[in-house]
Amino acid sequence: MKRSLSPQTILLPSPVMVVGTYGLSGNPNMLTVAWGGIASSKPPCISVSLRKATLSYNNIKQSKAFTVNIPSETYYKEVDFAGMVSGKECDKFGITRLTPVRSKKVNAPIVGEFPVALECKLVQAVELGSHTMFIGEIVGLVADGDSLNKYQLPDIEKVRPLFWGSFGSMAYYGIGTKLGNAFSAGNEILQPRK
Amino acid sequence: MKRSLSPQTILLPSPVMVVGTYGLSGNPNMLTVAWGGIASSKPPCISVSLRKATLSYNNIKQSKAFTVNIPSETYYKEVDFAGMVSGKECDKFGITRLTPVRSKKVNAPIVGEFPVALECKLVQAVELGSHTMFIGEIVGLVADGDSLNKYQLPDIEKVRPLFWGSFGSMAYYGIGTKLGNAFSAGNEILQPRK
Repeated sequence: MKRSLSPQTILLPSPVMVVGTYGLSGNPNMLTVAWGGIASSKPPCISVSLRKATLSYNNIKQSKAFTVNIPSETYYKEVDFAGMVSGKECDKFGITRLTPVRSKKVNAPIVGEFPVALECKLVQAVELGSHTMFIGEIVGLVADGDSLNKYQLPDIEKVRPLFWGSFGSMAYYGIGTKLGNAFSAGNEILQPRK
Repeated sequence: MKRSLSPQTILLPSPVMVVGTYGLSGNPNMLTVAWGGIASSKPPCISVSLRKATLSYNNIKQSKAFTVNIPSETYYKEVDFAGMVSGKECDKFGITRLTPVRSKKVNAPIVGEFPVALECKLVQAVELGSHTMFIGEIVGLVADGDSLNKYQLPDIEKVRPLFWGSFGSMAYYGIGTKLGNAFSAGNEILQPRK
């Protein structure tokens, strides 16, 4: 039975992205963000939405750059911490003992311990109300060698990312069972297996 | 060891969203989309990025409305099919035997068999190159009664959504183990458990 509910920002699953930025003084900051996603293929773009009150908002406005770091599930406590506190009040890299590594492509830090990072140059800021959507062109990708498959692409089963279950669970989850291949499983709709 | 790779639109995990629209003649269409995500809290907004060549692009331009349907993992074949073919060439609802149900809030169809749908009114279209990002205000949420938790919110463990492993796996996955609670697990960074 379908129920009509009040509007909610519930996407299942919601991604867990750790946004890396530098402040004016060169201090690295990171912020865990679930609002955003890939925005375009050519040019390759990703969006992250931030509140104006955040240090990361100020940093991106000034530096015009950010990284989107994809954590592995073992870092869920550090990831949660980086979304609970403000970089205006503490040094999140220092407290979590995660390592800010300067990107070679953009003026932003990468989280050294995380397996994958997208290096982004700001191309547009869209004001939406509570949040500003920062659209960044992905100009580089940094990944741990042992997270790559034979085609040199980050393999989700090696990266083992986490995601957020949104407001219905308020919890982080790891990835589960492979269901089927994309651009392939759909063929069975036309030609069901015997 | 970190490796610098060419830019890639790789977000892990990437969501699987089935966008529902009506054409001028009232024909329902659906398209599986991985580019997009929640964009703002107040007003509640979500973005989906589409190529101009798609029927859904034309439909949203005309109707100014769309739904974002969240499938459960059992529908991965139907979901894949809806991303492989164009609504310009076939009736995707008819072929998959999924049911278009008229939204009470917006001029767009909901996928009747899927547990959750966000009902969206177009507020902005951002041209990014290969893709146009449609930002919709979420004006309603429809969910199966048995997908809700005690707070009447869709529970990810009941919805059992799927996600896409991006280009490194080209496969769909289900959700895995709960790792910890959001806005809670991070406290252990400051006060580690004994």
